[in-house]
Amino acid sequence: MHGGDIYSHNKKVIDFSSNINPLGVMPELKEYLIKCFDEVSVYPDIKYRRLKKNIADYLNVEPSQVVAGNGAVEIINNFILFFDRVVVFTPCFSEYVLRAKALNKEVRKFKYDSNFEIAIEELKNNIRPKDLIILGNPNNPNGKRIDREVLINLAVITQEKGAFLMLDEAFYEFCPYDYDSIELLKNFDDICIIRAATKFFALPGIRLGYAKVSANWAERYKEIELPWSINSFADAATEIIFKNKDYIKKSKEYINEERQYMLNILSKIKNIVAYKTDANFILIKLLKYDEDFIYNRLLEKGILIRKCSNIDGLDKSYIRIAIKSREYNDLILKELIDILGE
Amino acid sequence: MHGGDIYSHNKKVIDFSSNINPLGVMPELKEYLIKCFDEVSVYPDIKYRRLKKNIADYLNVEPSQVVAGNGAVEIINNFILFFDRVVVFTPCFSEYVLRAKALNKEVRKFKYDSNFEIAIEELKNNIRPKDLIILGNPNNPNGKRIDREVLINLAVITQEKGAFLMLDEAFYEFCPYDYDSIELLKNFDDICIIRAATKFFALPGIRLGYAKVSANWAERYKEIELPWSINSFADAATEIIFKNKDYIKKSKEYINEERQYMLNILSKIKNIVAYKTDANFILIKLLKYDEDFIYNRLLEKGILIRKCSNIDGLDKSYIRIAIKSREYNDLILKELIDILGE
Repeated sequence: MHGGDIYSHNKKVIDFSSNINPLGVMPELKEYLIKCFDEVSVYPDIKYRRLKKNIADYLNVEPSQVVAGNGAVEIINNFILFFDRVVVFTPCFSEYVLRAKALNKEVRKFKYDSNFEIAIEELKNNIRPKDLIILGNPNNPNGKRIDREVLINLAVITQEKGAFLMLDEAFYEFCPYDYDSIELLKNFDDICIIRAATKFFALPGIRLGYAKVSANWAERYKEIELPWSINSFADAATEIIFKNKDYIKKSKEYINEERQYMLNILSKIKNIVAYKTDANFILIKLLKYDEDFIYNRLLEKGILIRKCSNIDGLDKSYIRIAIKSREYNDLILKELIDILGE
Repeated sequence: MHGGDIYSHNKKVIDFSSNINPLGVMPELKEYLIKCFDEVSVYPDIKYRRLKKNIADYLNVEPSQVVAGNGAVEIINNFILFFDRVVVFTPCFSEYVLRAKALNKEVRKFKYDSNFEIAIEELKNNIRPKDLIILGNPNNPNGKRIDREVLINLAVITQEKGAFLMLDEAFYEFCPYDYDSIELLKNFDDICIIRAATKFFALPGIRLGYAKVSANWAERYKEIELPWSINSFADAATEIIFKNKDYIKKSKEYINEERQYMLNILSKIKNIVAYKTDANFILIKLLKYDEDFIYNRLLEKGILIRKCSNIDGLDKSYIRIAIKSREYNDLILKELIDILGE
């Protein structure tokens, strides 16, 4: 169902199916977590004061406006509890709908258009009070970011309708700088902007998601969140990861450059369309063969990609690949050229 | 609301308010987690095959009968989703009711009698199909274990009524050996027995709870659980913690001995009643003064205890203290004698 399932393969694979910062974990984190190891033997601060301060400083907001969770997905899950219906655009991250169903909520699906744009008028005419609209920004699996003006418009419409807007920005830092949604939408109350350590800080195993909400919503969130949902390693890591400005800058620059490099070469490969992306992954439409054929051919070469037919709104003619090291990127590009032609 | 809030005090305190194994984390765990550190940069196995195998071996069940969560409380939370109503006996761990309310479920409360026994007939006459009965075994805050025959009786009644029995056995390993509920109740389907690394393995910060359920229930649980809810450190720790039989034996023996030692001295202190306990903590009824008085007097000496008036079913005449090292135990006993007399 998800990418990153390297455990189902017997041999070691190069994992293009999960979208983790190819620069890897910043080296000083390991040393720091070893230093803090003994924190594991006491309960984390149930109010997570240190963690919220560190996140707030990074996001340039107040600690009272921060909520955190065991990965971004726990925050998504918990916010769904407040609402009657979840509204999504497909294709999108499958957990939006899965969590809504697990929590017995109604789901309303719209479709992105062929350029992955939101049909604003259709949305406006169909949303209701107490709807929770969840949008990936940039959206997974295609990587497109919502345009600044569209985003402001969405916030206005959401507010007028008495609904709530949740932006899943797990890939925020990979985007070319255009706007900071937290700054841009700071005057709107009924908005939750989620980010995470998972992708950009290459820490999927540490389980740390966080979000900026209004102080009022942060108070309401306290009533429904699970106690101690962030482990002591993730808690301690907030002392380190947000402060390494060099790592942050290098990662952004690397992905920017490599994204251009890959899109440029992909544009020359026959029988595919590579979608424009603002993230660290690329959705590809296959005009020849299907996902199984390409998946199996690449797996023979030790390369794991993401098939997309189990993503609502896509079919067997789509695959998704991550942006990785230049060496690995060259490898998958060469294999794709071998299979599809140049 | 909970014990263990050492972060709200400016000075360093000896924490008798949270109930963690005083032997502390087993030494070899740190070295092993350092060795496995790089796992943090990849997604945990979404099927948690290694983790379930290790837990299954420890519990002497099949991996297909194991569910796991971000602490025991996440498993409690997720099981509540399956049911219409949560049934508890008070006083108990406050999260049973808090999670039910957060998930908009009805709650039916019964009261333990003055010896913390379950009124079986009253329960039998009042439970309904699709009730989730949650019982601490041993129960927190008093530490009493359900008698073997009562437990079998509860399982039979639950089955007859079409309800579901959840045993929260977070303190299981601290109990004097009498029965293993997993073995004892293995022929009942609608039962979930939860345990955790938190207390006995002194790892509250690692966030690892697990439970034995029927293979059918484990399949249903997959549909509602959050993905990647166990972090990579907790996942890796299962390779180590369950296998150190010496640590497990020593911890059990230590608590057994120290529990007798403390209960013996407490029985001689004036103006209190210390309840018989099977766990690593002791509930005390104050016949003179109240929780605030004792709490403040002990805090002046750098000792933090658990006030109990915010626990449903108790009032300001109760406190709870953990069993810690002999040195610390002697310290709190001496202070209690100073305050209350011998």
